[in-house]
Amino acid sequence: MLNRRVFLSLAAGCAAFPAQARARRLGRLVVIGGAEDKLSDRIVLRRFVELCGGAPSRIRLISAASADPAGAWALYQKTFAGLGVADCEPIDIPDRATADSPGVTDQILGADGIFISGGDQRRLMDLLWETEAFKALHRAFHLRGCCVGGTSAGAAVLSRHMLVQGEATRLPEKEAAELDIGLGFVADAIIDQHFSERGRLARLLSVLAQKPHMLGVGVDENTALVIERGLGIEIVGAGAVTLIDGRQMKSNQEEVDSRDHLEMLGLRLHLLPAGHRYGARAGDPLSRAMPPGMREAIARLVAPGPIRG
Amino acid sequence: MLNRRVFLSLAAGCAAFPAQARARRLGRLVVIGGAEDKLSDRIVLRRFVELCGGAPSRIRLISAASADPAGAWALYQKTFAGLGVADCEPIDIPDRATADSPGVTDQILGADGIFISGGDQRRLMDLLWETEAFKALHRAFHLRGCCVGGTSAGAAVLSRHMLVQGEATRLPEKEAAELDIGLGFVADAIIDQHFSERGRLARLLSVLAQKPHMLGVGVDENTALVIERGLGIEIVGAGAVTLIDGRQMKSNQEEVDSRDHLEMLGLRLHLLPAGHRYGARAGDPLSRAMPPGMREAIARLVAPGPIRG
Repeated sequence: MLNRRVFLSLAAGCAAFPAQARARRLGRLVVIGGAEDKLSDRIVLRRFVELCGGAPSRIRLISAASADPAGAWALYQKTFAGLGVADCEPIDIPDRATADSPGVTDQILGADGIFISGGDQRRLMDLLWETEAFKALHRAFHLRGCCVGGTSAGAAVLSRHMLVQGEATRLPEKEAAELDIGLGFVADAIIDQHFSERGRLARLLSVLAQKPHMLGVGVDENTALVIERGLGIEIVGAGAVTLIDGRQMKSNQEEVDSRDHLEMLGLRLHLLPAGHRYGARAGDPLSRAMPPGMREAIARLVAPGPIRG
Repeated sequence: MLNRRVFLSLAAGCAAFPAQARARRLGRLVVIGGAEDKLSDRIVLRRFVELCGGAPSRIRLISAASADPAGAWALYQKTFAGLGVADCEPIDIPDRATADSPGVTDQILGADGIFISGGDQRRLMDLLWETEAFKALHRAFHLRGCCVGGTSAGAAVLSRHMLVQGEATRLPEKEAAELDIGLGFVADAIIDQHFSERGRLARLLSVLAQKPHMLGVGVDENTALVIERGLGIEIVGAGAVTLIDGRQMKSNQEEVDSRDHLEMLGLRLHLLPAGHRYGARAGDPLSRAMPPGMREAIARLVAPGPIRG
């Protein structure tokens, strides 16, 4: 894997460089369902490092979702160092004033990769929302092609409609789960994590009943959904990614009371185990064949949100 | 609710009796996901009794799936007595010779309702398969309009392809669950029970990958799927029924090894909470509106298997 800076200089200097390869450097997201292996094969974090540009890349860590940001940072620094990344630093964001500081925006704009660790997605958004750091993250992702990875709460924040919390009920219930606004790199999907391990299908269905035009995305532990903006997705790691498409759904959300069981008819479910790639465009040579309607779902998933800032 | 014998004599003697009402006396199944309430409202068992013809009906209990048939019988006898049913007797089937005896077939053919309690579905089928009792059950259901109810293992046996056992894995795996032959009252569906309580979606998906033309049916505890042959279904009780339609599914079942995670694309999922009815024919006035493809799924579910014997 080429280092991103080397790659960009190559691409700039060589008109014959494949357009698709250039496009693929743009705006990848690595959406990790939590509990990724940090000691053994580290297949998920290894892929994140590759997508940032490999060992020479500059990786910056945002651990502000955690109640112990320094502890989270130390853990990931050691892990990324073990994967050969020497230039790996924390972006310390203790408060919103710091999130507005030039020091933080410079760190973000200089990164090849940003990694957002877990904790509480609302704590992170309270610190970042509409700050200079927030805008810098958008510029880094949309304009500079920075790879953005997030795990657990750090994965949930990547979508615009962010799943905050909710009981892992057995059956979907009206208003069982709470939504807020996330970073917005994924515009038309709602991301849940620790998905099959914590049996969160019912919780994700509960929010889809509220937002039937969103795609539901459940990412398992030690598993990454890699989103290549406009192109396609790839599943990496140990588990699977579950996609739930409710565009044709009929639900009784409007007829029932809060916490009643929901009727949800006509959902489309796609279970994507690690090791496969699914293109958003017909003719992608690496992509799996898809049943009716699935390519449109993938296209929605890889459609970027609007740039903020 | 009319007693079945009274009803039939009325129907026979009265040409003006509505044709649909007559048809609705034929071959109802009450598929219960286990752990049905036996003490309080008893809504599920109360509905079973109603469908048998109410308090005056003759209900016979098959508890041979249980390791303690006498204990199971005593429990249900007390419960049905509490619901006003005086004529409620066990059909004792300790071995296959008894299953071939005229005493047992007479009991079956004289019943308004047969209730099959839980335990081990394979133990039950080992006793019944192709015996005279098996054929009598088919005649009772198909020709005499006997209502057949089953709970837990007694629900699993009602389909032709019977889910026997399998680990409740988080994700569907090739060959994770085992199928055998059941009683065959439901021809085109595979029934699982204790469904959302035991998180059995992955197990049911695993068998659907083997049998993609079957409809997957997951019934929750204290919940009944009432199947009215050829007409429609109704959900009764506390939980929901999950239908999974794999007709348009693409899976990698043929490409992977045993116990590998399965890719399953394009499944259709319908979550039906208690309290609703879904007709197999357009224009059913009590039926809920359905999204594309769902009515065909219901029609498959209410299509009877062939009569055996």
